[in-house]
Amino acid sequence: MKKKVIVLGGDGFCGWPTSLYLSGLGYDVTIVDNLSRRKIDVELECESLTPIKPMSSRLAKWREVSGEDIRFYYFDVARHYHRLLTLIKELEPMAIVHFAEQRAAPYSMKSSYHKRYTVDNNLNATHNVLCAIVESGLDVHLIHLGTTGVYGYGTAGIQIPEGYLKVKVDAGGTDEEMKIMYPPHPGSIYHMTKTQDALSFLYYNRNDGLRITDLHQGIVWGTNTNETMLDEILINRFDYDGDYGTVLNRFLMQAAIGHPLTVHGTGGQTRAFINIQDTVKCIRIAVENPPEHGEPVKIFNQTTECHNILELAKQIKKLCGAEIKYYVNPRNEDEKNDLNFCNDNFLKLGLNPITLNEGLMNEIHDIAKKYQNRCDISKIICTSRWRSDLLIDTKGSTRPVIKTSFEKAV
Amino acid sequence: MKKKVIVLGGDGFCGWPTSLYLSGLGYDVTIVDNLSRRKIDVELECESLTPIKPMSSRLAKWREVSGEDIRFYYFDVARHYHRLLTLIKELEPMAIVHFAEQRAAPYSMKSSYHKRYTVDNNLNATHNVLCAIVESGLDVHLIHLGTTGVYGYGTAGIQIPEGYLKVKVDAGGTDEEMKIMYPPHPGSIYHMTKTQDALSFLYYNRNDGLRITDLHQGIVWGTNTNETMLDEILINRFDYDGDYGTVLNRFLMQAAIGHPLTVHGTGGQTRAFINIQDTVKCIRIAVENPPEHGEPVKIFNQTTECHNILELAKQIKKLCGAEIKYYVNPRNEDEKNDLNFCNDNFLKLGLNPITLNEGLMNEIHDIAKKYQNRCDISKIICTSRWRSDLLIDTKGSTRPVIKTSFEKAV
Repeated sequence: MKKKVIVLGGDGFCGWPTSLYLSGLGYDVTIVDNLSRRKIDVELECESLTPIKPMSSRLAKWREVSGEDIRFYYFDVARHYHRLLTLIKELEPMAIVHFAEQRAAPYSMKSSYHKRYTVDNNLNATHNVLCAIVESGLDVHLIHLGTTGVYGYGTAGIQIPEGYLKVKVDAGGTDEEMKIMYPPHPGSIYHMTKTQDALSFLYYNRNDGLRITDLHQGIVWGTNTNETMLDEILINRFDYDGDYGTVLNRFLMQAAIGHPLTVHGTGGQTRAFINIQDTVKCIRIAVENPPEHGEPVKIFNQTTECHNILELAKQIKKLCGAEIKYYVNPRNEDEKNDLNFCNDNFLKLGLNPITLNEGLMNEIHDIAKKYQNRCDISKIICTSRWRSDLLIDTKGSTRPVIKTSFEKAV
Repeated sequence: MKKKVIVLGGDGFCGWPTSLYLSGLGYDVTIVDNLSRRKIDVELECESLTPIKPMSSRLAKWREVSGEDIRFYYFDVARHYHRLLTLIKELEPMAIVHFAEQRAAPYSMKSSYHKRYTVDNNLNATHNVLCAIVESGLDVHLIHLGTTGVYGYGTAGIQIPEGYLKVKVDAGGTDEEMKIMYPPHPGSIYHMTKTQDALSFLYYNRNDGLRITDLHQGIVWGTNTNETMLDEILINRFDYDGDYGTVLNRFLMQAAIGHPLTVHGTGGQTRAFINIQDTVKCIRIAVENPPEHGEPVKIFNQTTECHNILELAKQIKKLCGAEIKYYVNPRNEDEKNDLNFCNDNFLKLGLNPITLNEGLMNEIHDIAKKYQNRCDISKIICTSRWRSDLLIDTKGSTRPVIKTSFEKAV
């Protein structure tokens, strides 16, 4: 019998290619999704640059090209607890991969509605899954998509470990070693929910012995995987808007349509990256390597390299001939930071990372060119902001924008 | 003009005496409450030992005896965001005291419904308050009731500091000092929500400059304060049931009606305590001493002493002539632990703690005797449990119950 996996949020940017990849590998895959990502497109009056087909068409095409069936259930993991519970009991999956969270930092900062939606959706979704696994009485391995942002984007001064940090505490004159969760430094409401999820994992792991893997993923770049390339109907999302677009994809798309590359602030930010093809491989590795019974929450840094944003922009400028513009940073963050992540866990388990290369960047650039007629250029600039006193800059300038000091009325 | 304070959850065990105390001191007090505590009484088919009058009677009596008006709004802070926002804008309070959370660890563990209710209610309530203060644009000091349980009930081996812990981290061969939030060790879903609240505070303090005081309170004992004693209609709650009753009050009430004192496990647990009269004083001190602008979240340990549970039971046995019985511990916790809390912040600001004394214990015992005819003895034993494999022990035994090792099917 095939091994069963439930993919919560299996219609999204990471969930969809993961579902196809696992299905192609011989897993019996069931997708649960409330199609919230498509509905947010309606709200934002913006669509994926690549044309996304309805779920039924996607699944029918997958059946045709692969011979594999993927089940699909339409419900809300954060709301429909009992449906989730009965599904787990019915299927008895070996693992649940949990992507069912609002995943964009800028979207989570748009307004009080968006902050509240992100908190309510993400925390209840994660807690419902944990609660349902316990109530089912089954031994289901939960794999959760976190973010490298839980560690914060300041300069840590150390290589950031995988979830846990060794520290020394003064216990009455002598230093005692302790292993703690790396101190959380959330930089947006979205990131905050992921640090709060981590406490739910800590608790359910300790109290109920749940086996949990938390994957702190870097910024995903790329669009297609081997599976989504099999037919245009299977194509993955390519978000280019200021809320859901990820920085490298945005730059490549901006270059493709002749829009200036939108660097925020000075571009001094360093961020962690991973290609979408590695995302799906990491999920497979996590599914295949569950924690032992009694093991603490397993935390992997799901990221393969770090890059400085301005350097990235320059590389793309060179590759595709784009102009660079600097915009007031809508984020409340350090103007400049260094980052260095340990990712030994995945490397040891056989991940052979795809790093930034011109071939792949050209491929993404070509996809963007192919679908450029679908682009609404008014959606490119990020209009979400971290505080109401931060300017929305739709013009940009040719010189780096230095942060003005935070002077708030309070 | 009077200083305005909103008390969220002002109908509850701590909220009600706090509201009266602040009103008596000359603050303009507005209570917001969805009366959830009274509704949970309906669900649990159990009532406060002391007779609790409807809110309108309470407020009318307070007006009569004090000459002071307290406004009351009936809505749900976790749900009715816009009402909360408009209220803050209308009143422009100097401070909001936030008790609007489900506060019983056993209740939070009763079933998946209760776990989910606690998470949904507590996290959304806290986040809504933070979000509304930011949206209001006003400079409102938020005072939140946390719990000493966020630090965990293991033996820390150090005096537990007030919220923050100094540690040393190896930064490439040299130790660097860091001040971190004390690593969270939640022992129940209820406690988990309080550790998650702390991350919301961290975020809103850093991103929006909100001024926040988080009070990590010990187990409250006692019933009345000077204000609730003014008339029987103003009397405070006295919960004796297995979910909401706090240990010392439960023991005193059990002694009053001739029920064995219900010690869980071996009674080796040590817990932090505070008298209800000190709770209200601590809130006043917190209101009067807001953090500076730009100051990190201010964290106080709102507790005055630590006691071993078995020693407490023995003291009450001696005082009131009760029998002691040992019950299988429904909690997943250490059989025995030591605790030592720093509470310098409140002491420095003038708190003169009421510590455990026979006079006060006798007073509580007398209240319990007075209302013993209202007791439903079937509600005394705790029937909530931390895992489904833990026995519900309604009989008890004369000897300490040693924990059986955790052997779960998973």
